[in-house]
Amino acid sequence: MARRNDRRRAALVDAAIEVLARDGARGLTFRAVDTEAAVPTGTASNYFGSRDDLFTQAGARIYERLQPDEATIARQRAADRDRETYAELMRELVGRVASFRAGYLALLELRLEATRRPELRRVLTERVRADVDANVAYHETSGLPGDAMAVKLLMLTLNWLIVEQLTLPDVFSEEERDRLATAAVERIVGAEQTARPQG
Amino acid sequence: MARRNDRRRAALVDAAIEVLARDGARGLTFRAVDTEAAVPTGTASNYFGSRDDLFTQAGARIYERLQPDEATIARQRAADRDRETYAELMRELVGRVASFRAGYLALLELRLEATRRPELRRVLTERVRADVDANVAYHETSGLPGDAMAVKLLMLTLNWLIVEQLTLPDVFSEEERDRLATAAVERIVGAEQTARPQG
Repeated sequence: MARRNDRRRAALVDAAIEVLARDGARGLTFRAVDTEAAVPTGTASNYFGSRDDLFTQAGARIYERLQPDEATIARQRAADRDRETYAELMRELVGRVASFRAGYLALLELRLEATRRPELRRVLTERVRADVDANVAYHETSGLPGDAMAVKLLMLTLNWLIVEQLTLPDVFSEEERDRLATAAVERIVGAEQTARPQG
Repeated sequence: MARRNDRRRAALVDAAIEVLARDGARGLTFRAVDTEAAVPTGTASNYFGSRDDLFTQAGARIYERLQPDEATIARQRAADRDRETYAELMRELVGRVASFRAGYLALLELRLEATRRPELRRVLTERVRADVDANVAYHETSGLPGDAMAVKLLMLTLNWLIVEQLTLPDVFSEEERDRLATAAVERIVGAEQTARPQG
């Protein structure tokens, strides 16, 4: 049955992400998703109970697609535990997130839409909190230098660096963005923080 | 003549900011501005040549309204030059910007709209660059500790902290946001940075 076709559902949610990034939250209608996914009119409305449902599923899917793949995780686990490696990992992270341009822009649209939709705000708040907690927990077992505060401060700093890159890419050059990411790790992780044994 | 009425123009631009924050970039039409400003239909289209014009004037006006007033500047000039004072100034800055909620949300809408409008992107890029340069220049004459890199990193960090506060206010508690702002200054400005004589 079409309703149970998970692949089609994922394709519709991916189409919703593209619509969000291109046309903004107000442009995200069932009809726009049908057009973007090149499916018959009425398809999206069979898969999603409401626009709220569409917004929250788009948000969940973006976070799913932002997860690093197995190869990236394995490479990170094998990397050194010094601050230079940390800076390189963070520059890679910025590059990986920014390369999913539509996803990140859609996430900003969802955050703005969350100021208008309490249910979306609730779901996104849980998702972002879980992301903060997961980053802190991952860091604690990674053996990388720095503490939980450093993880949170880096999230703040690098998020806005990605906003700059994706919305006004000429404010900073690519080289300057790299220097900013490197300096962020050097200063926030702190020279006095020593690497702990790998967990 | 109505066309030359600067006060009315400012009121229309302020109405545009409210519309942007509430309804998003796609909701910003001449008619929506007329309704928000409670003026006769057709008024806004007499003051602005195009929607592009309306977007860029809204952006300029937000930066104008985000400037600290004379009393705040005088107080800052009279403040101590140590890192604790710096942290307090930054917490105040976050509070001041976040209290102009519609303006900051409208600015995020404008950044997303800039991905779709080259002229808006050009104007906003110049404005943000000028803002970065002004903050670096202000810092150099202020006698506050830290270097130009610290000023830029703090801008990145505090911008995303404001995004969190305004879009998903329950991700961090108010107390945690204060701790994050304080820690950002402590770490980014750096313990090794000593205050220089006031310029």
